[in-house]
Amino acid sequence: MELTPVRGCRDFLPEKKITRDAITEKLRRVFEEYGFNPLETPALENYELLSSKYAGGEEILKETYRLTDQGRRELGLRYDLTVPLCRVIAANPRMPMPFKRYQIASVWRDGPIKAGRYREFVQCDVDTIGAKGMIADSELIALTQDAFDALGMKAFVKINNRKLLDALLGKAGIPSAKQPDAILALDKLAKIGRDGVRSEMFERGVEAKSAEEILVMFDSFGKKGNDEIIDKLAAIVGSEDPAGRIPQDASYKGEGLKELRDVMQYCAAFGVREDFVRIDPSLGRGLSYYTGTVFEAYLLDASKITSSIAAGGRYDKLVGAFAGRGEDIPAVGISFGLDVIGEALADGAKEKKTVVRAFVIPIKTGAAAAKAAQELRRMGVPTAIDLNERGVSRCLEYAAKEGIPFCVLVGEAELKQKSVKLRDMATGKEELLSVAEAADRIKSNL
Amino acid sequence: MELTPVRGCRDFLPEKKITRDAITEKLRRVFEEYGFNPLETPALENYELLSSKYAGGEEILKETYRLTDQGRRELGLRYDLTVPLCRVIAANPRMPMPFKRYQIASVWRDGPIKAGRYREFVQCDVDTIGAKGMIADSELIALTQDAFDALGMKAFVKINNRKLLDALLGKAGIPSAKQPDAILALDKLAKIGRDGVRSEMFERGVEAKSAEEILVMFDSFGKKGNDEIIDKLAAIVGSEDPAGRIPQDASYKGEGLKELRDVMQYCAAFGVREDFVRIDPSLGRGLSYYTGTVFEAYLLDASKITSSIAAGGRYDKLVGAFAGRGEDIPAVGISFGLDVIGEALADGAKEKKTVVRAFVIPIKTGAAAAKAAQELRRMGVPTAIDLNERGVSRCLEYAAKEGIPFCVLVGEAELKQKSVKLRDMATGKEELLSVAEAADRIKSNL
Repeated sequence: MELTPVRGCRDFLPEKKITRDAITEKLRRVFEEYGFNPLETPALENYELLSSKYAGGEEILKETYRLTDQGRRELGLRYDLTVPLCRVIAANPRMPMPFKRYQIASVWRDGPIKAGRYREFVQCDVDTIGAKGMIADSELIALTQDAFDALGMKAFVKINNRKLLDALLGKAGIPSAKQPDAILALDKLAKIGRDGVRSEMFERGVEAKSAEEILVMFDSFGKKGNDEIIDKLAAIVGSEDPAGRIPQDASYKGEGLKELRDVMQYCAAFGVREDFVRIDPSLGRGLSYYTGTVFEAYLLDASKITSSIAAGGRYDKLVGAFAGRGEDIPAVGISFGLDVIGEALADGAKEKKTVVRAFVIPIKTGAAAAKAAQELRRMGVPTAIDLNERGVSRCLEYAAKEGIPFCVLVGEAELKQKSVKLRDMATGKEELLSVAEAADRIKSNL
Repeated sequence: MELTPVRGCRDFLPEKKITRDAITEKLRRVFEEYGFNPLETPALENYELLSSKYAGGEEILKETYRLTDQGRRELGLRYDLTVPLCRVIAANPRMPMPFKRYQIASVWRDGPIKAGRYREFVQCDVDTIGAKGMIADSELIALTQDAFDALGMKAFVKINNRKLLDALLGKAGIPSAKQPDAILALDKLAKIGRDGVRSEMFERGVEAKSAEEILVMFDSFGKKGNDEIIDKLAAIVGSEDPAGRIPQDASYKGEGLKELRDVMQYCAAFGVREDFVRIDPSLGRGLSYYTGTVFEAYLLDASKITSSIAAGGRYDKLVGAFAGRGEDIPAVGISFGLDVIGEALADGAKEKKTVVRAFVIPIKTGAAAAKAAQELRRMGVPTAIDLNERGVSRCLEYAAKEGIPFCVLVGEAELKQKSVKLRDMATGKEELLSVAEAADRIKSNL
């Protein structure tokens, strides 16, 4: 019988699972600090929903695990957490807005297996529904900064705005109908280079002259700072006057730039560090449902992980489309990838092999040793006790193999002194202590 | 388009999800205090594994969601966490023993929907693999006591031993081959009464005389205390002498009783309260894989919930069968039902509608209000800020509807005094405070 996990899926033995739980726990804390509430939806969704024209599109549908229940209902395993969120909002029209929720849960995609790509993986999504102002976008960027700070990861966020990108593409002579194609090609700039983008644009029917113009335009932003980029953008798409009056000039296409400026201002108000957000006017993000702000987080040190470690944007049309109430429901969200974060942290942090902090070894003192274990537990020390009547040396061996930092030996001699012997497994040092003292010693070592 | 969750599945909006998270968090803490490590396995398993003859049996297989991947692999959604655990142990032969793990995760069963029964539900499983002594069983009972104490639930555990039950059935003249049938019938005693059990035994081919004898035997235990029941049992199946010597009498069938006695002794050592464990010699638990100790936890107050709220037992043959290494791998475990625990707690505890403790209301003070929100968050107060540029009264309305306990009003007048106005939403009382003071006030109210 096959004993390995299903292809593309994984077992997380304690060593890995402890690390993953620590990551999600830190994310959860930051999400809640920012006022996002937890939501849980089922793994199974109706296939009709998953395959709706508003949902993930054809590519993702090919990778959807399909099944039927005994009542012949057509079902599928969710491939993301956004479609279920849209369903929940649509199903609960009386929900007070804004609705700020996070969901940390598995999704499934029956796709090709590559390094870092799995068929069952966890997404950590944070979304604000029902707030159209850019303060909501900035709040998510501030949250992202705090999340990576909490994880001890040095990261930054690339930011852009889809309306602005569309305006730039328009200025380069790419008609609206071809803009999604151009964006898909541009998204690969870092991966396939200028020549690659040029030829992909050609294949997708974008005129060579326009392709060249937009690439030159992006080049001109170079490694400039945010303020300089904004000034250059204003020169291209137009800009409001200081009183916010829109220029009476047909060439004004500045709504996206205005939003981007607002996001940057709110970011400053939320205390986002200046070097944490970098405007990248070429950033598009493939998904067609984004309508405004888009962002992607990366590690500062790109020597090992070059892909984004979190990404998201504003999607003002999607939720309303599901709700079918004939109105937009503004939304903005970000998704953190647990696997890529785990991978990034794997080198740095020493993994904890076990949650157990103390291993109680009875030396012919069954009941007294059990009592000592219970006292340690009551004092909040995760404690195991020998269950196999092994000798002291085999117990010490087991504790060492398991990575348990302390052993607590309970023998007749120690009991006479109302003590136990605490052994520090790292140093081999042993001390006679009361159980309460041993608990303090262990806890101060955590 | 259908917007409700898939039949038998549920959305947990924040109000419900917060409660569920609080329950699993308490369980998790107790599980880890007892030295159990977290494990995660995929939702998808190979159908071959799920349908193995050692697995859940035909009934459960009928309720298994089946699917195939693009590579035509036959897969299924796991219906429990025990089969995946057996697979993990079998796949990792070098794992140090005992292996103590917990797993809190969803399982799926495509079965009939009744009150309290769902098609996607969470199991909270705790198992010790590789310890044959009864101290492991007792440790789980002590853990169960602590878990229900932590949840604030008044519960008790019914305990029995399958070897003992087999011995009793044998004494009543029921042959080994018929004992599983008799156990299935006896498990329904509370539900269908003596007459029901008698007729079900008849249908299953158990002789009427034997059925009557076993029922009378169980009656004779009545509401006796544990010690008295043990004495009566010893009189029926035989007992070792005080030195542990087994009687040289062919009628001795005391191994199960010996194990039960050991469990009770270790329970006392672990500080399990005497009235927490009640011996019930008729308890069998349907599953055929149990080999020794079996137990079920119930609420003391059975007026609302009469079903068990946690259950488990020893299964010394199952893991070894999966491993196929020709040897037994002893195992004992317990499973807590999240739904039934949630239901039991639903009446008592007031549900928290939101994790948010403070709602910041900017009164034309955008940046300063954002800064105040960030300060509150840094001080560990889950904080939301108005994202919709609403007036004060609409903000207060929203906060009240959401169940947020405090509002923090940030206006020009307050800023001049380097203060904010903290409004207690329960009393309507308002105070001028520094942000740090407001944070302390809010936290002391948690």
